[in-house]
Amino acid sequence: MQRQSFDLLILGSSSAAPTTKRNPSAQLLNVAERFFLIDCGESTQIQLRKYKTKFQKIDHIFISHLHGDHFLGLPGFLSSMHLLGRKQPLTLYCPKELKGIIDLINTVSDTRLNYEIKWHFTKNDGLNLLFEDEKVQVFSFPMKHRIFCTGFLFKEKPLLRKIDKDELDKNKISTAEINNLRHGLDVINEDGKKIKNKEVTIDPEPPRSFAYCSDTIYDEDILKYIKGVDLLYHESTFLNDKAGRAKETYHSTAEQAAKIAKAGKVKQLLLGHYSARYPDLEPFLLEAGSFFKDVLLATEGKKVKI
Amino acid sequence: MQRQSFDLLILGSSSAAPTTKRNPSAQLLNVAERFFLIDCGESTQIQLRKYKTKFQKIDHIFISHLHGDHFLGLPGFLSSMHLLGRKQPLTLYCPKELKGIIDLINTVSDTRLNYEIKWHFTKNDGLNLLFEDEKVQVFSFPMKHRIFCTGFLFKEKPLLRKIDKDELDKNKISTAEINNLRHGLDVINEDGKKIKNKEVTIDPEPPRSFAYCSDTIYDEDILKYIKGVDLLYHESTFLNDKAGRAKETYHSTAEQAAKIAKAGKVKQLLLGHYSARYPDLEPFLLEAGSFFKDVLLATEGKKVKI
Repeated sequence: MQRQSFDLLILGSSSAAPTTKRNPSAQLLNVAERFFLIDCGESTQIQLRKYKTKFQKIDHIFISHLHGDHFLGLPGFLSSMHLLGRKQPLTLYCPKELKGIIDLINTVSDTRLNYEIKWHFTKNDGLNLLFEDEKVQVFSFPMKHRIFCTGFLFKEKPLLRKIDKDELDKNKISTAEINNLRHGLDVINEDGKKIKNKEVTIDPEPPRSFAYCSDTIYDEDILKYIKGVDLLYHESTFLNDKAGRAKETYHSTAEQAAKIAKAGKVKQLLLGHYSARYPDLEPFLLEAGSFFKDVLLATEGKKVKI
Repeated sequence: MQRQSFDLLILGSSSAAPTTKRNPSAQLLNVAERFFLIDCGESTQIQLRKYKTKFQKIDHIFISHLHGDHFLGLPGFLSSMHLLGRKQPLTLYCPKELKGIIDLINTVSDTRLNYEIKWHFTKNDGLNLLFEDEKVQVFSFPMKHRIFCTGFLFKEKPLLRKIDKDELDKNKISTAEINNLRHGLDVINEDGKKIKNKEVTIDPEPPRSFAYCSDTIYDEDILKYIKGVDLLYHESTFLNDKAGRAKETYHSTAEQAAKIAKAGKVKQLLLGHYSARYPDLEPFLLEAGSFFKDVLLATEGKKVKI
């Protein structure tokens, strides 16, 4: 059986001023066919079309903070979903001031969306559960930027145990017991004998996780939230030659992102949110690579299987 | 001597929901090196980069109305101009409610632009002069759409008369008189003889004009404003098969745009603002072409010399 999806699609990798090759921040995460849009910079809706996503399946949008390059694609995207027939509700997880902006734009343009927006305002006091169902949990956590900003943590829930079919028959276990076995319980077989769970099941794959950290100054306080994740997206607006500028603007360098990845013992690091001053991204890979071994570059259209 | 420029660049040709091939409304007009941006749909700043325009030279932006596809690219564009070092003022001609939106976005994102925005709010009571210098005049005029909306009329000022150099020498006219001649005055030559202006000058090219009409229901009331223009941009969101839908949504069909062009005795018609339901634009050309002879299609990147 194929494992459930945990796939990330990069829609935008630029920092504030986009270039012809880089769009502002946006990523689409698919966890077991739940589609989570993370940030929504200008022209995200065009990127979603370009990469042939089924964007009406996005029911949850997460906005880290209210700098334009992280949310200015949202009003147009909300409108397009409306024009293209959306009826099902959409939940927005975001700083509270975003509601005023969206409401004002809709009032002024005399737009009444045909679907409901459920607002969930983010907080900056530690780990907060934003969303949960039987497959996944999503949390926010505080980040240090010039304005209120949160990161997001996406965690697969522990998978059910796998059944060893041969052992099932051999041990004369009724198929009615499969659900109990998958949940780790011992069962009684058709001969009335107790069968230990471990004898007929296999450990499932460990649950996976993804942390999204944009935008932030170098900040070890986030380590407790991102510790051990399978994939860490950490902004790297600058290279080390601009470490002063990074600090001044509450951004990070590739080296700093790598140091966070290393200290957090994450499996893989994804860099992005590059300043337009760097046409070539290879130096980001080199700089981060000397501090952490498994580094990826976010580029438009890239898919990362977690 | 080359004639001064009067060139239009199409940045976006889609109606409300963009497609992978069509961006929301935006056009860049260059009149004698004055750069006028007309509407600013989402991702206009990316289009301006794509077509290698010098976008810091844009000192005047005209917004027809506050449906998202005509202005949602503005906040990001204003921010990018700031980030890329703009200092000189920018004038915005727009419905008054736009100021509240821009102010709110800048407040929430804690952005203080390094340049001044001069606000000029449009009115809906006939022809209003918005801008004038020695080369060009720009007017707004009311259009009928679902919300407050204006068209824009760009008019070259009459050019100065051309000097016939051979006649100048032959008639013994001092070069000090050239300015008077260019302004159409008769002059006295070095022998004290009166020389008629017409004898030594040539008629200049007639001044050119461009009218921008988006969005609007079919409305003959605009004829008085657009009469005789060299180029009329008139929205054609739909083809005639959707004439009912056009009326209902206060939009126009290609046929209606052509009828306005014909009744207005304009020289050339430019269609645009196409609904996403039409992947192929050829039918727009055919439909309009049977009512008006000189029809162009707005497509991204197209340049029209007026």
